[in-house]
Amino acid sequence: MLSHVYIKDLSKHVGESVTLKGWLFNKRSSGKVKFLILRDGTGYLQCIVFKGNVSEEVFALADSVSQEASFEITGKVKEEPRAVGGFELDATDLKLIGDSVEYPITPKEHGIEFLIDNRHLWIRSKKQVAILKIRHRIVKAIRDFYDERGFTLFDPPIITPNAAEGTSTLFEMDYFDLGKAYLTQSGQLYAEAGAMALGKVYTFGPTFRAEKSKTRRHLTEFWMVEPEMAFYDLDDDMDLAEEFIEYIVQTVVKDCRPELEVLERDISKLEKIVRPFPRISYTEAVEVLKSKGREFTWGDDFGAPDETVISEDYDKPVMIHRYPSAVKAFYMKRDPENPEVALAVDVIAPEGYGEIIGGSQREDNLDFLLERIKEHNLPQKYFEWYLDLRRFGSVPHAGFGLGLERTVTWICGIDHLRETIPFPRMIYRNTP
Amino acid sequence: MLSHVYIKDLSKHVGESVTLKGWLFNKRSSGKVKFLILRDGTGYLQCIVFKGNVSEEVFALADSVSQEASFEITGKVKEEPRAVGGFELDATDLKLIGDSVEYPITPKEHGIEFLIDNRHLWIRSKKQVAILKIRHRIVKAIRDFYDERGFTLFDPPIITPNAAEGTSTLFEMDYFDLGKAYLTQSGQLYAEAGAMALGKVYTFGPTFRAEKSKTRRHLTEFWMVEPEMAFYDLDDDMDLAEEFIEYIVQTVVKDCRPELEVLERDISKLEKIVRPFPRISYTEAVEVLKSKGREFTWGDDFGAPDETVISEDYDKPVMIHRYPSAVKAFYMKRDPENPEVALAVDVIAPEGYGEIIGGSQREDNLDFLLERIKEHNLPQKYFEWYLDLRRFGSVPHAGFGLGLERTVTWICGIDHLRETIPFPRMIYRNTP
Repeated sequence: MLSHVYIKDLSKHVGESVTLKGWLFNKRSSGKVKFLILRDGTGYLQCIVFKGNVSEEVFALADSVSQEASFEITGKVKEEPRAVGGFELDATDLKLIGDSVEYPITPKEHGIEFLIDNRHLWIRSKKQVAILKIRHRIVKAIRDFYDERGFTLFDPPIITPNAAEGTSTLFEMDYFDLGKAYLTQSGQLYAEAGAMALGKVYTFGPTFRAEKSKTRRHLTEFWMVEPEMAFYDLDDDMDLAEEFIEYIVQTVVKDCRPELEVLERDISKLEKIVRPFPRISYTEAVEVLKSKGREFTWGDDFGAPDETVISEDYDKPVMIHRYPSAVKAFYMKRDPENPEVALAVDVIAPEGYGEIIGGSQREDNLDFLLERIKEHNLPQKYFEWYLDLRRFGSVPHAGFGLGLERTVTWICGIDHLRETIPFPRMIYRNTP
Repeated sequence: MLSHVYIKDLSKHVGESVTLKGWLFNKRSSGKVKFLILRDGTGYLQCIVFKGNVSEEVFALADSVSQEASFEITGKVKEEPRAVGGFELDATDLKLIGDSVEYPITPKEHGIEFLIDNRHLWIRSKKQVAILKIRHRIVKAIRDFYDERGFTLFDPPIITPNAAEGTSTLFEMDYFDLGKAYLTQSGQLYAEAGAMALGKVYTFGPTFRAEKSKTRRHLTEFWMVEPEMAFYDLDDDMDLAEEFIEYIVQTVVKDCRPELEVLERDISKLEKIVRPFPRISYTEAVEVLKSKGREFTWGDDFGAPDETVISEDYDKPVMIHRYPSAVKAFYMKRDPENPEVALAVDVIAPEGYGEIIGGSQREDNLDFLLERIKEHNLPQKYFEWYLDLRRFGSVPHAGFGLGLERTVTWICGIDHLRETIPFPRMIYRNTP
């Protein structure tokens, strides 16, 4: 056993001599003392190599060890409230494991293209580690939320024979002798089948859009969580979305304070994300836009700038419901009180982070759904299985999708989605 | 709010009048009494509709309601130890929500092709529900296991520019102007970059093999969990795999007894899956084969029948380590004590369920890794980023991959992988 202690566990070893393993994050020197900052994935630790305490060879090594070299260090654990993490190590021994000659990412500024070219190394930096830890905490919060509420996980297929919402942004591939197949854009239609079997389900996996958007809000490969609930209407759906977002944000606030501080996130803004969230209809949102002097025609879809203007009145996510049916997907149920609008909801994050949730009550009437499929010029034969869900025990049901990377971007308070996933895929980039 | 009570919560409502919603699983009749079995995704409930207790319309409806019709039923909750789930409902009212005319899957036997054609409905059956619930519990156990042990989740890319282990079984697609891209077969190489940044990571997502295998042990799309640990050697790797498998199996035994009973699983066989597991070298395994009269040449890879013969001596998973380097992937470290073999391990499930884990210590020496890449005729330029992990602070590290669907198949004690995922993808099938 290559036994060693992790930085996060040092509080159990105060006063003891322990061995740690990791990489050199940074170092500085002050005459007879070398300060090596070790990182091991669980934290950062200042190790003090005092000339009088170690052999000449070890002191020379402490002088020459370079950024991102891996090493093993032994010493006594001291409490030190002023140090990062609250501990220091008085080193007595040091062994080089793997050298690191001319590590390309230095503390100076680098261009973004250079950093993404070196994404496999860039993820070692303090900010990227913080983002990836928050991403992990958010993923766990998402799963815990549904697991604790009686939902069953329902992994939908990635390879699909047809597209739910149009074919212009699909990645296409050959599937043996069965012709073309596509990468999924959403697991929703499958999740609806799951909800009829299991009551409440959620999907959570990668989804794909071959969108030619180069904006900071687009990735071609991103993770989406999609709950789908039998016997839920639009109001239930909005209640769940609201509770869900509050849960995610407050979990991160509670558990990821050190990481949020690395990112210099204004935590007070996140602390405000508590229920209830404002709910306004699309029609009311259009009035808001007009009252602020923006030109907008009822019936158009909101663009990102419209969303920003609508959301700027709030320090919480705003839920916009009942969009014109014409701009929404075929499967969304029309409002019985006004068939011009669909029982849809989008949730817009505050601080200009844009849409993080899109959802709706689904059309549960077979005849209406058939009409919609015709109106949208969709090939009915591909949807026969989906129509079966209305033929055999149809029930009111609803659901939504939350984009993981958009949520991580907002909670981390960063600019671009590409830093929220280990290896981002964009229109101009599928490496490393 | 479409308020109603779920079957799993009935113990809180004994003696109360409640409303439940769901689908008709089954019914029988006995003169003035109709017995409707309601399913709602959380359980099954026998509802007793006694002619004297309800209106004529309701009694007529109880008579006519058909399999998989959705309905709402109101009545008084009674404890009834003899009933499935321990409760019964004395119905006072019944409302049809969605009819179900000629539901295709009847209690009679159906052919497997018919059932997969109707997979969107087949998942409503008792056995399929049990399998999907166990799948969910296994996924949660997998994530909990790593989350509780300080691992960071590291979602690797699905779209990859090259293949880790050969190109014959890759799904290929066009990626904008960047040429061909492929669906990932394993997140491991990316996970290694993650381990250098975060110490211990795990990936858990869909992976793809365009294998032309039609066996019951192959899916083209399946989920894999891949832990990767800095500063772990092969023994550490095997210790972790052993603890991991025990944890998964014993969690299911503890939490999914009703589902295992639906599947008629011999639970005593699962209760035996506790550490330590037998560990034998490849060379010892070859001797076992020969002693049982099988022809086998040292240096060949084991086929499924060989694995079955080797594992039949044990009622636990058997860990076979130190395979001939020639049959293993380029990134596996050779045994310093015998370069003919790689520091690899496969874990073979008992009862003939075959390989569920493949893993190894990774080659951490830059020069040796370059040699392997040349020997395997792999294009070095695609691996430059991977080689960087050995150029900048290389450390001993190891990991493995566990196939989710194979594990679910084994734990459920079923024959075919296709029932362990909501919508299976196979060489001859990518619908519904």
